[in-house]
Amino acid sequence: MAKKQQTHGLTEKKEDNFSEWYNQVALKAELADYGPIKGFMVIRPNGYHIWEKIQAYFNPVMEKMGVQNAYFPLLIPESFFKKEAKHAEGFAPELAWLEKEKEITERLAIRPTSETIMYDSYARWVQSWRDLPLRINQWCNVLRWEVKQTKLFLRTREFLWQEGHCAYETEAQCVQEARMALTEYQKMIEELLAIPVLAGEKTEAERFAGAKQTFTLESFMPDGRALQMATSHNLGQNFSKTFGFAFEGKTGEKEFAWQNSWGFSTRLIGALIMVHADNQGLVLPPQLARHPCVIVPILFEETKQAVLAECVKLREKLKRFNCLLDDRDYYSSGFKFNEHELKGIPLRIELGPKDLAKNQCVLVRRDTKEKKIIPLADIESAVEKELATMQQAMLKKSRQYLHECRMNAGNWNEFVAGIESKKLVEALFCGKKECEEQIRQKTLATSRCIPFDREPQNGSCVHCNQPATQRTLFARAY
Amino acid sequence: MAKKQQTHGLTEKKEDNFSEWYNQVALKAELADYGPIKGFMVIRPNGYHIWEKIQAYFNPVMEKMGVQNAYFPLLIPESFFKKEAKHAEGFAPELAWLEKEKEITERLAIRPTSETIMYDSYARWVQSWRDLPLRINQWCNVLRWEVKQTKLFLRTREFLWQEGHCAYETEAQCVQEARMALTEYQKMIEELLAIPVLAGEKTEAERFAGAKQTFTLESFMPDGRALQMATSHNLGQNFSKTFGFAFEGKTGEKEFAWQNSWGFSTRLIGALIMVHADNQGLVLPPQLARHPCVIVPILFEETKQAVLAECVKLREKLKRFNCLLDDRDYYSSGFKFNEHELKGIPLRIELGPKDLAKNQCVLVRRDTKEKKIIPLADIESAVEKELATMQQAMLKKSRQYLHECRMNAGNWNEFVAGIESKKLVEALFCGKKECEEQIRQKTLATSRCIPFDREPQNGSCVHCNQPATQRTLFARAY
Repeated sequence: MAKKQQTHGLTEKKEDNFSEWYNQVALKAELADYGPIKGFMVIRPNGYHIWEKIQAYFNPVMEKMGVQNAYFPLLIPESFFKKEAKHAEGFAPELAWLEKEKEITERLAIRPTSETIMYDSYARWVQSWRDLPLRINQWCNVLRWEVKQTKLFLRTREFLWQEGHCAYETEAQCVQEARMALTEYQKMIEELLAIPVLAGEKTEAERFAGAKQTFTLESFMPDGRALQMATSHNLGQNFSKTFGFAFEGKTGEKEFAWQNSWGFSTRLIGALIMVHADNQGLVLPPQLARHPCVIVPILFEETKQAVLAECVKLREKLKRFNCLLDDRDYYSSGFKFNEHELKGIPLRIELGPKDLAKNQCVLVRRDTKEKKIIPLADIESAVEKELATMQQAMLKKSRQYLHECRMNAGNWNEFVAGIESKKLVEALFCGKKECEEQIRQKTLATSRCIPFDREPQNGSCVHCNQPATQRTLFARAY
Repeated sequence: MAKKQQTHGLTEKKEDNFSEWYNQVALKAELADYGPIKGFMVIRPNGYHIWEKIQAYFNPVMEKMGVQNAYFPLLIPESFFKKEAKHAEGFAPELAWLEKEKEITERLAIRPTSETIMYDSYARWVQSWRDLPLRINQWCNVLRWEVKQTKLFLRTREFLWQEGHCAYETEAQCVQEARMALTEYQKMIEELLAIPVLAGEKTEAERFAGAKQTFTLESFMPDGRALQMATSHNLGQNFSKTFGFAFEGKTGEKEFAWQNSWGFSTRLIGALIMVHADNQGLVLPPQLARHPCVIVPILFEETKQAVLAECVKLREKLKRFNCLLDDRDYYSSGFKFNEHELKGIPLRIELGPKDLAKNQCVLVRRDTKEKKIIPLADIESAVEKELATMQQAMLKKSRQYLHECRMNAGNWNEFVAGIESKKLVEALFCGKKECEEQIRQKTLATSRCIPFDREPQNGSCVHCNQPATQRTLFARAY
């Protein structure tokens, strides 16, 4: 029986070997483990808890948007994919098919996304404008048989996500709510995950298979690569026309529905690791932590009982913060410090006999390692304040980094230099698929988005010199 | 474009054609729809909301039990199934395999349950007694390729469930917590779903594939068939030995872990329909309803504004009950009454101009159809009281039915007569697999459980007359 020996602490540094450092944080902070099949992962309780916090944040947001949760089948008939040509083409290489069984009349694939199977139902459910808008979301697993190198959370063959799929009478409402979903995503990712994002529209080359427009949130990782965080799509009437999703309009005429879809996945947990973790391990934004603070008693034989008793009182005082008391007597304090740092608990409270004598404790912040002496009487307000400060500070710090990485390129040389020095490069771009493909081949960079925070302007494309109006962000990306 | 025409209201009666009536409730209350592939279902928002309420109830229960949620891969390698022989044999006929892909070294099945893939990880994660107990649950979809006739919620090829999988140092704690899970299930099913259950242990023939003991909750449906509601299993060391799941015990010796697993599925929603729905449609226990009450204004042209204004005030007053105001002006009040009855909203409040003149409204209970005139000033307390009363009354009513259906059989003739008259028959039974198989062939009844509320006694088996000590419940079952 071979057992992997657990090595505490990271053996790689973020600045030296980012990729291996990342894997170690994911594994050693017990966020995830490799599954028995290549490209599959186990999301361990520490990782899944982050996903649950994200769900708990986003479910009420969707409720306010009028979106209801549902569940559609895992298996999709081949004929469904074939109805929307671009969609079929986009997903064909990544589909996993079921073994032929005698009673199945056609091939069945495990869902890579659920547009087709959902819209088949929508077409039957909606008869009249009175049944619209129809707003449904599902939280589920999807499978995409990646051939690229897989990576925990960032690219796995199976992942968890939410996919919202709504249908409307008018395109205006459809686009407006696709944009609204993106705005809510941005709020969540910045407020909860403390990761700043840039919002914009995708170019033709990067658009979702079957969409008329794709909106996206892009973030920028510390290794100088962009990461797509969430997207929403205006599907136009592409799917409604192929799925016969029509309804009786207010005028009595048959009309085809306007549809959008939008989603984010467990990839967000990967971004969280990359942006916030350090050489000691994970750093959790307080709002995402199961236990935002942990009490570690400093135990000596003769004072053990008194110190433990005070720690129990402390835990009671800090109950509303779901504070953990680590009273395991078979591990040393040093071992515990390292373990809780590795796992990213935002605040640590140390209390030993000397502290007890002075009616104080030591409060240590995970992100800055800053230590503060706090009178025991003030601990509640101190914890509350530090948690709020830390959540804000983490966003501010990563926002500063994003700001520093964004640069403008006025010509092709500046563009290439920017990409080579791992920046997020903004330049005027013609938007053409062929031009973008050439840029990719020359620099390995892809367009990330046409940011909403830039006005169109007249000029020429940074690469092909053809007329261009859109300032577009480019970077090498995950 | 062929559209199914929606027929409002049920065309079958519960007492005449139970099976078709059931399908109609599930479909017309928009709890579920048939998927495009035989045996698969779509869980629509009304149905999925019930599942979310169940999750919201049970997640905190598990947290108190020290159980954490996680997520394991959908696909399981063939070699994993083969490790535990009985488990492999039990699930073999129901597995759906992936099409052979060149890079896969062995066959992959979609999970029918996750014992094997979880314990493969457990064996790597646990080194010492310090890492135990390990308590993990996952909420997920599973696939069992049923060959029997499928039925919405009750038997579908894909369903949603939770599966808890825990590991311990000792068998005593393992069994104790398997029993505790069952007790928590019983509390939930009775308190939340208002369905009474009988708790007991399964006979050898009905035991889970690979388990040492299976504990079960059994309910009894209005068509005279039993339904298994939830189970928990003492797996002993069957899996830990085959998966090499050993740890260093307190004495320093290598020991194999003791394991249990426990689960319930979306089948509970099927039970809910069968037990509570009536010929007007679904009846939701108040605690499971998205909107426990709905206000239907009675609108006439000249008093419309005044009545609607009062209804808006009423909704504000009843905000904490998440009360719905149905102010759609393109449907008649009668249409709305029928629709909300069909969908099972527990309380309806009617308010028309005559009510407004008298500062009152009409409160109608879904389960009893009882109408009460309530002064507008008293509406909050009236709603609160009716919701609590209704939740209790629904459980009481179904408990009464269960009590009436349970009977004792002192000999084989009584046993056969009981089964024929669709009762839940208790009798002394030897517990042997072969004897149980003969009973099944003769009567179509299977053993449901050896109920915990009966003491063992000495006697002879109702069927084979061999010595028997266990009073065992038999019935025809879903």
